[in-house]
This record gives sequence, structure tokens and C-alpha cells, in this order.
Amino acid sequence: MGVTTSCVVGIDPGLNITGYGVLDVSSFAPRLMEAGVVRGGSSGTLEQRLLSLHAGISEVLDLHRPQVLAVEELFSHYQRPRTAILMGHARGVICLAAAQRDVPIRHYSATQIKRILTGSGRSPKGQVQAAIARELRLEKYPDPPDVADALAVALCHAYLGRAGSVAAMQRHTG
Amino acid sequence: MGVTTSCVVGIDPGLNITGYGVLDVSSFAPRLMEAGVVRGGSSGTLEQRLLSLHAGISEVLDLHRPQVLAVEELFSHYQRPRTAILMGHARGVICLAAAQRDVPIRHYSATQIKRILTGSGRSPKGQVQAAIARELRLEKYPDPPDVADALAVALCHAYLGRAGSVAAMQRHTG
Repeated sequence: MGVTTSCVVGIDPGLNITGYGVLDVSSFAPRLMEAGVVRGGSSGTLEQRLLSLHAGISEVLDLHRPQVLAVEELFSHYQRPRTAILMGHARGVICLAAAQRDVPIRHYSATQIKRILTGSGRSPKGQVQAAIARELRLEKYPDPPDVADALAVALCHAYLGRAGSVAAMQRHTG
Repeated sequence: MGVTTSCVVGIDPGLNITGYGVLDVSSFAPRLMEAGVVRGGSSGTLEQRLLSLHAGISEVLDLHRPQVLAVEELFSHYQRPRTAILMGHARGVICLAAAQRDVPIRHYSATQIKRILTGSGRSPKGQVQAAIARELRLEKYPDPPDVADALAVALCHAYLGRAGSVAAMQRHTG
């Protein structure tokens, strides 16, 4: 194997602020490469926000060329359907940006992400943030929360992928 | 005024089939220029469908260069939130295609569309189809229903725009 970095981008979609986190997953312990937010702007029209969001995420994908884009499923937001439908628009242009670059997408439920990171699908937000800071050896909790949520889904994917590799190794050697 | 054609594109968004209708609105009576569907494909992943949909709508917009894209609001679909959220994804990439070409978007509610076309916001589908066929002087009802719905929202925009012009003329001359 060469020294190419393989990385995963995690996304927490939103029309105003979309968090993203880029993890280097080429070694056993995932390492934080970059994280930040793409702002759709709270004052523009829906379509102006979608345009900013698509351009911002496209830039992140072009810069890092990840092997996977990991994103939270939306179906846990039933209790606020109007918000969930609007977030569907944001999620649509994010998925499009990945598809336009042949970056495969993996969708994870909020419960699955929490369970992988903390052992329980019902952990409070603080526990998830603590797990992220510990796993990525960060000196402080990721802020704003959109960044923490983006890192959480990227970590979830990294761990499941690693678990898959270990299982595959065990199958091959066992 | 020159002989340039000004047209409106109406869209009925869906992940499997998205209907579109193009109306020439340069004279008082709107005229059907083209209508059809863009297929996202029912077998592909969400992101493959979004890719097909964005490419198909982009092609329609590049061909006709409309002055407005008219699209139905999604908020009447609360009773089936999962479908509405997925349709939000489709609607997101459609709005993006318009924004990338500086085509303004107008959003109309289902009730508003029905009221403008038939006089009542609660008309059954058959009455809406009959109104479309009559107004556009079509020999038969538009089919599939996605095309009829796309023409309905385009007609709604055309009529509201015309009403606006008449009101403006009356203000200027009255």
C-alpha cells in the first residue's frame, strides 16, 4: 500500500448552517483533518441557500476527495415535519454534490450514531460530544454543535468500516 | 417589444417521475410548448436518482431559458412525512438547477393552484385536468398525472402574473 490518505467526510445538513468534518481513516485510529461549517445564509431565499450549500460542499469534496460521504438520516425528525422537509432540500443538494463526483454515500440513523459512539442509542448530547473529543484526542469539545454532529457521523462510519475490516480479517485468518 | 418568447416552466417534483410543462406566456393566452417527464429511475440509489433528476431539469432549463420556474409547495404532504422528506430531496436539486441558472422560482400551494384553475381550492383532480385541457386547448387530458400537475402549477403562475399585469395597467391608466 502507498502513502495515500483515505478519508471520510461526515455531514450534518442544515439550510442555515451545515457542519462538516473530515477524518483521516488510513490508520487504525481516525484522525481529524479538518472541520467547519458551510453557511447557507439565514436571509437569502431557499434557492440561494441551496446554491451556497452545494458550492461549499462541492469545494470540501474537491479538496479532500473522500472515499465516502457519511450523513445522518432525516427520518427521526417526524415531529417537526416542516423543518424536516426543508432539511430534505439541503440533504438533496449535498447528496447531489457527492453523486456528481462519484463519492459513495452512507446514511446512518441518529440512534445508530449514538450507539456506536457511546454504547447507547439514547445518550444525551453531552456524552456524544465527550466521546468525539476523546476519540479524536481534541482539547475541547467541537463547536458549533453542527461540527460535533458531523464528526459523530464520520466517526460512526469509520468505526463500522473498521469493524467490517476486522471481521473480514478474522474470516480470512480464522 | 421584440418577438422573443417568454416562457414559464412548471414542475411536479418526484424521485421516480418528475413532471414538467413549458408554457409560452408571451401572448395573453398561455400556449403549451412542451411537456414531459424526467425519470429518476425507481431502482437506483437516492443519489443516483437525484443526479438524473438534476441533469434532466438542467437540460429543460438550458433549452427553454424560462423567465420563471413554478413549483408546488411540499407542506401539504404532512400526513406522509417520509415521502415528503424524500420529495424534499428531489425539490432541493430542482431548485438548485434553477438557482445555478439565475432562474427565479415561485412556490405555490396545492390549494392555491386548484383555486386559480377551477375557482375552488378543494376541486377533485378530474376538474383540474379538465381546466388544463380547456385552457391549453388540448384534445385530451395530459398524461401521466405528473405532467398534468406540472402544467397546473405553470398555468397558476401564468394567470397570477397576467392578473398582476392587468392590475398594474389599471393602476397606470386608471
